Amino acid sequence: MTDLAIAGRATLQPITAIAAAAGIDDEALELYGKYKAKVDVFRTKESPATLGKIVLVTAMSPTPAGEGKSTTTVGLGDALALEGQKVVIALREPSLGPIFGIKGGAAGGGYAQVLPMEDINMHFTGDFHAITSAHNLLAALLDNHIHQGNTLNIDPRRIQFRRVLDMNDRALRNVVIGLGGPTEGVPRESGFDITVASEVMAIFCLATSIDDLRERLSKITVAYTYDRTPVTAGDLNAQGAMTLLLKDALKPNLVQTIQGTPAFVHGGPFANIAHGCNSILATNTAREYADIVVTEAGFGADLGAEKFLNIKARFAGFSPDAAVIVATIRALKMHGGVPKPDLGQSNDQAIRDGFSNLRRHIANIRKFGIEPIVAINRFTTDTDSELEIVQELVRGEGAEVAVAKMWAEGGEGGRDLARKVISAAQQPNNFHQLYELDLSVEEKIETIVKEIYGGSGVDFSAAAKKRLKEIADNGWDKMPVCMAKTQYSFSDDATKLGAPTDFTVSIRDLQVRTGAGFIVAITGAIMTMPGLPKEPAALRMDVAEDGKAIGLF
Amino acid sequence: MTDLAIAGRATLQPITAIAAAAGIDDEALELYGKYKAKVDVFRTKESPATLGKIVLVTAMSPTPAGEGKSTTTVGLGDALALEGQKVVIALREPSLGPIFGIKGGAAGGGYAQVLPMEDINMHFTGDFHAITSAHNLLAALLDNHIHQGNTLNIDPRRIQFRRVLDMNDRALRNVVIGLGGPTEGVPRESGFDITVASEVMAIFCLATSIDDLRERLSKITVAYTYDRTPVTAGDLNAQGAMTLLLKDALKPNLVQTIQGTPAFVHGGPFANIAHGCNSILATNTAREYADIVVTEAGFGADLGAEKFLNIKARFAGFSPDAAVIVATIRALKMHGGVPKPDLGQSNDQAIRDGFSNLRRHIANIRKFGIEPIVAINRFTTDTDSELEIVQELVRGEGAEVAVAKMWAEGGEGGRDLARKVISAAQQPNNFHQLYELDLSVEEKIETIVKEIYGGSGVDFSAAAKKRLKEIADNGWDKMPVCMAKTQYSFSDDATKLGAPTDFTVSIRDLQVRTGAGFIVAITGAIMTMPGLPKEPAALRMDVAEDGKAIGLF
Repeated sequence: MTDLAIAGRATLQPITAIAAAAGIDDEALELYGKYKAKVDVFRTKESPATLGKIVLVTAMSPTPAGEGKSTTTVGLGDALALEGQKVVIALREPSLGPIFGIKGGAAGGGYAQVLPMEDINMHFTGDFHAITSAHNLLAALLDNHIHQGNTLNIDPRRIQFRRVLDMNDRALRNVVIGLGGPTEGVPRESGFDITVASEVMAIFCLATSIDDLRERLSKITVAYTYDRTPVTAGDLNAQGAMTLLLKDALKPNLVQTIQGTPAFVHGGPFANIAHGCNSILATNTAREYADIVVTEAGFGADLGAEKFLNIKARFAGFSPDAAVIVATIRALKMHGGVPKPDLGQSNDQAIRDGFSNLRRHIANIRKFGIEPIVAINRFTTDTDSELEIVQELVRGEGAEVAVAKMWAEGGEGGRDLARKVISAAQQPNNFHQLYELDLSVEEKIETIVKEIYGGSGVDFSAAAKKRLKEIADNGWDKMPVCMAKTQYSFSDDATKLGAPTDFTVSIRDLQVRTGAGFIVAITGAIMTMPGLPKEPAALRMDVAEDGKAIGLF
Repeated sequence: MTDLAIAGRATLQPITAIAAAAGIDDEALELYGKYKAKVDVFRTKESPATLGKIVLVTAMSPTPAGEGKSTTTVGLGDALALEGQKVVIALREPSLGPIFGIKGGAAGGGYAQVLPMEDINMHFTGDFHAITSAHNLLAALLDNHIHQGNTLNIDPRRIQFRRVLDMNDRALRNVVIGLGGPTEGVPRESGFDITVASEVMAIFCLATSIDDLRERLSKITVAYTYDRTPVTAGDLNAQGAMTLLLKDALKPNLVQTIQGTPAFVHGGPFANIAHGCNSILATNTAREYADIVVTEAGFGADLGAEKFLNIKARFAGFSPDAAVIVATIRALKMHGGVPKPDLGQSNDQAIRDGFSNLRRHIANIRKFGIEPIVAINRFTTDTDSELEIVQELVRGEGAEVAVAKMWAEGGEGGRDLARKVISAAQQPNNFHQLYELDLSVEEKIETIVKEIYGGSGVDFSAAAKKRLKEIADNGWDKMPVCMAKTQYSFSDDATKLGAPTDFTVSIRDLQVRTGAGFIVAITGAIMTMPGLPKEPAALRMDVAEDGKAIGLF
């Protein structure tokens, strides 16, 4: 059965009932249909005496198909609820664009999904549309400023702020705008990114209040003057209208899992040029209503968990209480050198060899002072002996491990994992960030490369070196670093599987995100506007007689 | 007090109460917060034995500030309710883009507004975002088709389908896309229009069902092949995914007036290159729940009413029961030759001279077999004697007239008008379209120019003549005509005020809208992507401490 079919068979509770059970005041609920609601977190209310514990779900370096991190996050939430915990899940919203290309969505899978998945994967409550509008308003104000006399002396050749659309649209990657003569704007090169790559999206996910949102928006560096002075959204006075466009979107969206566990699905920044986590407001709100919050971070732990811990947790001021690393037999075999077509075949030695990858991720999480738990996301093709080998290897590292069957069984399939997570979250930990902000940008990058990736050093390109100077000159070097690197390897070479050593990481370029508050370090070619494939998934989509979606998954 | 301040003081009823009072089944209601809801019109339900009567609100040729058509529509609805009628209002949704430029919104004004005006003027229920997505998905599929091998043999120089954004963004009017080399698409000229100018918007407003929507979307002509064969959205197989993106948006949005009268605010196509009316589905749904429906059409009666009657009513298969022509002392003076700075000064002769404009609009509405009622939208500066002159002149034409004070007094200020409308709607009328579809495109245009505009004939440019041949060759000549003309004059010259005669109308170009189902006849320069002014309204906007909008109006 497809995810859509399973989702279609589920019986949803009214979201008002889900909210009531979670203790969310009816007055704070803004319904979007019967099964979705925004929670007005900006109303004055008393905070609870204790906030819920945070469980981060991350993964080993994945195969291109992904290892089921969202499925594990949702299923673990359901399992914790079955174990009697008061739990709320916090997830990212899926991007609309890629749905029309190849992939499905990011709302979990099988019997561990958030619902209504059809809505969540389409317009949902309109958050990404609001972000698109706010982003493009700033772009329009910028070009209008230049057209109307350019009193800020902006150099049209040095504008770094592009436009966005939530669409996979290759033809918009590189464009020339402002053509047509003196009444039609000022011609210049530019381009469009997909909305999830917008700095406004990253800000949306890092803002802790409306005031913090406005402040961060005003700090976006959009361009440079002819004498190389940075120009911000605040210089254009765009932050007020942008905040107005975002004020409702900023309220976290409440939905439910198939099992009826409450889940906030809110925000969805890229995990490469941004930090790849749901909004801080969603995580914080979840903590107000739960004893335990399960949340995820994009890609493998070298990227997602590193950024969750060094960027999101730092800005939010919270510390995670447990971390789950999702592993699969398939990914272990791949890291053990098995080519893709043979991943379905039994190969114990490859699993043992590929464990080097998982081992390094375990060690990495420990470097943040957290004791990780490994969740083996079981596939129907996995044998008992394969699962036994992995469990034994994990135990050999002194870590807890559980086999998770949430895709097939929902929360019931994750009860062993849930018990281990509860136990771990009750232990005090020694959480700390990996680096202090007063290190130089070079030192921060070097720390991540050596401590997390296992590399021997960092090479900076000539362009990157120029940027480093600019960053220091402008006093931007006290921000954390957001690494944009392949998710398939610890190194910057996607083909180096397992746990590579003796490699250097090449920083091709650096981008400054003064609004979001981080420096993006770019190692390879980063795609910020995907294209559609030869046979787009869109061509199979339609609306059925009964009004339901066809071809979504 | 500003419109925003008046709106902010109003006490809203829960939209569930408004719906219940209107007889709308709770099960059909999809809430968007407490004060907005979509009505699921696609659920099977019994239609009432009789459908509500339709009152069209239109206007004389307006001043640049507008004559209060939306205010009159809303206020008349309220007044009809006070007169004991079961009434539902149907209005267009305002466009987001222009709000950041100069203008406010289109949700009425003063004490005749629909609420929550802040939401209605921002993202509302996301309809325009869904239309933007559906439109741009088609554009992305088109460029992807060409990039992936172009089996349809599309000539990239002959693509007429552009992209859209709901933003005033001058710099996107003329762009070159697909730059950057062989992996980045096929370079070609293109551009962006504002979302309200999208053919998808026009289709959205003319569709009578999901199936009709899909069928119309599939008929959009996007391009031509190298041998000049039209290529449609259906050839690209885009209509299913586009329908999926629009299926929820297509449900009409229910809100309320300050007085608590139910109003559907749904769809908002341009009144120049499109037909400028709210959706047929909203009007039809309103008729199911009301004895009398008040709705409006964009611009003056030569444009809005002509298109409402010849295009919308024809496609919907309904006939209006009454028509109200909104007039103002200010506009009459302007048509009587008074320059803008002097419009506040008393000038009886100018009113008498300017009446020629209103007189022609009265005669025009009668050509459709409907007896119009004139509503004088009273401004505080209007004197009693001025109002008396106009009433006398209108009565001299044998038409009913009422002074309307809804901006200042709400429904109470429109009771005289309401009584006259009730009386008129009870009379049988002789409604008929002005032309039959089997006339040639030239004949249809000539009919409108001679019968409605009072012109002596039509000139077609060389380009328009070429288009006429292409239209006939492709069998597209049986569609109605949608005139794109200045709203300030009956002629195609905005400076010819009053009731000009002995003029010809020049058709510069024709555009084919095979999905919407009309031919656009373009008389002058038509702006399909507005720009921002030197001091955009956006710069004054923000969110207040209490979460409310600042600077919206």
